[in-house]
Amino acid sequence: MQHVYIENIAKYEGQTVELKGWLYNKRSSKKLVFLQVRDGTGIIQAVVFRPEAGEELYQLCDRMMQETSLIVTGLVRKDERSEVGFELAVTNVEIVAAPTQEYPLSPKEHGVDFLLGNRHLWLRSRRPLAIMRIRHEIIQAIHDFFDQRGFLRIDTPIFTPAACEGTSTLFETKYFDSMAYLTQSGQLYAEAAAAAFGKVYCFGPTFRAEKSKTRRHLTEFWMLEPEVAFLDLDGDMDLAEDLISYLVERVLTKRRHELQMLERDIGALEKVIKPFVRISYDDAVAKLKELGSDIQYGDDFGGDDETILTKQFDKPLMVHRYPADVKAFYMKRDPQDSTKALCVDVLAPEGYGEIVGGSIREDDYEKLLAAIHKHGLNTADFEWYLDLRRYGSFPHGGFGMGLERTVGWICGTHHIRECIPFPRMLERIYP
Amino acid sequence: MQHVYIENIAKYEGQTVELKGWLYNKRSSKKLVFLQVRDGTGIIQAVVFRPEAGEELYQLCDRMMQETSLIVTGLVRKDERSEVGFELAVTNVEIVAAPTQEYPLSPKEHGVDFLLGNRHLWLRSRRPLAIMRIRHEIIQAIHDFFDQRGFLRIDTPIFTPAACEGTSTLFETKYFDSMAYLTQSGQLYAEAAAAAFGKVYCFGPTFRAEKSKTRRHLTEFWMLEPEVAFLDLDGDMDLAEDLISYLVERVLTKRRHELQMLERDIGALEKVIKPFVRISYDDAVAKLKELGSDIQYGDDFGGDDETILTKQFDKPLMVHRYPADVKAFYMKRDPQDSTKALCVDVLAPEGYGEIVGGSIREDDYEKLLAAIHKHGLNTADFEWYLDLRRYGSFPHGGFGMGLERTVGWICGTHHIRECIPFPRMLERIYP
Repeated sequence: MQHVYIENIAKYEGQTVELKGWLYNKRSSKKLVFLQVRDGTGIIQAVVFRPEAGEELYQLCDRMMQETSLIVTGLVRKDERSEVGFELAVTNVEIVAAPTQEYPLSPKEHGVDFLLGNRHLWLRSRRPLAIMRIRHEIIQAIHDFFDQRGFLRIDTPIFTPAACEGTSTLFETKYFDSMAYLTQSGQLYAEAAAAAFGKVYCFGPTFRAEKSKTRRHLTEFWMLEPEVAFLDLDGDMDLAEDLISYLVERVLTKRRHELQMLERDIGALEKVIKPFVRISYDDAVAKLKELGSDIQYGDDFGGDDETILTKQFDKPLMVHRYPADVKAFYMKRDPQDSTKALCVDVLAPEGYGEIVGGSIREDDYEKLLAAIHKHGLNTADFEWYLDLRRYGSFPHGGFGMGLERTVGWICGTHHIRECIPFPRMLERIYP
Repeated sequence: MQHVYIENIAKYEGQTVELKGWLYNKRSSKKLVFLQVRDGTGIIQAVVFRPEAGEELYQLCDRMMQETSLIVTGLVRKDERSEVGFELAVTNVEIVAAPTQEYPLSPKEHGVDFLLGNRHLWLRSRRPLAIMRIRHEIIQAIHDFFDQRGFLRIDTPIFTPAACEGTSTLFETKYFDSMAYLTQSGQLYAEAAAAAFGKVYCFGPTFRAEKSKTRRHLTEFWMLEPEVAFLDLDGDMDLAEDLISYLVERVLTKRRHELQMLERDIGALEKVIKPFVRISYDDAVAKLKELGSDIQYGDDFGGDDETILTKQFDKPLMVHRYPADVKAFYMKRDPQDSTKALCVDVLAPEGYGEIVGGSIREDDYEKLLAAIHKHGLNTADFEWYLDLRRYGSFPHGGFGMGLERTVGWICGTHHIRECIPFPRMLERIYP
């Protein structure tokens, strides 16, 4: 008997096939048992008709516990009401393993702490399936986007000898006889790689010991960081715009069903097409004040400011040229106005907040050295990074895109903890 | 003027274009300067003809230091002797930045410690370019392979509450008020994901505090780990065989030029086609003894044994059913012979050693619990993992493939430290 997956069931209409999976839910009447069977690729209704199935099979199915693993044999037939378009007329059921105790995640509502503590089981539900499929699609689309444009993927190290984004949120580990810090960003290494390979990206886990419990922070998250030699700020914004619109279009095309399962406002996503809105920090602050915010000039935007601002537009908003003093040491200053950094943050629409932060990097040796001193960083740790300015320095830039924030925006989830298989937060490291 | 990349230069024959890059090498005569210009996508010869270029441009180019960043304008013309098939007849050169001191990596030979200490600069050489492109191709091919087969990519956590592959090689970090361990394998989490999504893979950095200085060990390496529900050992071997032959074929098709640059024996790679050789551990030991090895029955293979064994075949060798006692706690025992584990190691040909280790996982609650006790592991850490056997346990398996070992084999490098952009080893964490 051929083992088939539910996602391919349409190919087998009128045939008898074998599904291997788990009992997701069931209901029964005197004559029928409706088994909701999931196999990881979808959920299908398998119908046991008592007069045909016989008493033994009917009883077996009628008493079956949720999450029993099983092999179901049956005839594939059309069913307009089914979400996969088909149902299975059961001819046989073989139990692989019955639960040894009642499954703790019944279809009823559970509190989020309980769900997070049982994340290994929670993943079996409908909503995580839809989100993880969209996450997968976005990851695959990122790889395709950069491969087609001739970028090399360069995996930057997790163990680093120094901090990049500030020392207050570092995780450290004993590294034989010395110490190592877990990477906060692959950017500095990606810059070295851009000098070697022209167009590169890194994409890996990133660590910040964030003590804040917000809906937008994880201690471990995935970040995509392209870096391009001979790029200017307009080119950097073009790249971010091209990427983001491509990702949204790809999910709309290939994972529309999952967006519907999540009850995402698809119309809002369909508006995410180029060109996005580009405004300077100065203009953004003026607009915020006009809208009643009490933001002070020079401040970074708070969550409320981001929400107010992005709700003015139905596309991502690119805010460029922030005051250099609030930004990272490696950013190049605007030659037109040296108080500003050549940088850009991309804010997702509908109040989802920042998903991308990018900049052109300081390529002047003396200015970079001064910035390292000014930020109180240890020059010895940055000798190799300074080498990039000693030997054939070059204009270059790129950005970082938080994967979970991007998935969260596209899926329309409130908290990004749902957008990674096993979230790590201040008080959460299990399972 | 259009900025073009060297890898696309063939499209611009007969046109005047602009290249942005660095001076890789040069030689000159009284009438000519030959600039070897690299832009990260290739190296091209740019010819400065003194009578046409004029004295100023000739002098500028004649005195130019290695790794000067520059913008070269010139006419693209055919050149049979060039590795890219074209050269540039220079009409203008603009220096972006001259090195502030002599470039430390001259084209002469350097010791490996010096090169590793200057890895951020070493990456600019020909050999790392070829290896990193092949690494990129393999990574992209892995994503394509699994996407086409309907696998979901599931990123497993780096921070874990417990050890998976033994406690002697763990890196640990303070995690707020508790401790966390850096993952040694995503497998246990991938198993939970397989119960949720059927077919999954994880692919991320993995950490082992290896004190051994061998050519096959890094403290930080990337590992691919597919995991499939309702899989048996033959299916697991089929999957590994399909993947490996696909990766080799893809590199042969798309990165043949890079293999040639590395002087790889391409004929040896062309023999890597299905089916591979499958032999049991018992037969492998018998064969080794026949060949003069002093291996004791029950031992794991040493490096020499692997070399002797794989040199007997010109394809990867799949050794299955090792004695269970030398293998990890989570492996299922062979129902036909309970002293054996349902496992497989894939040894690359030509003495490159193990690239894949896989198994079917123990799916019986009681047996798994006994194995956890026997290995002296803390049951509390594995409660969630045991849940997978409590609630609808299912036969399943998968494997781990070391990315750098695979890249090293395909590229034909002696030491895998060349196969990752920034290698981390016992005494190496900088740059």
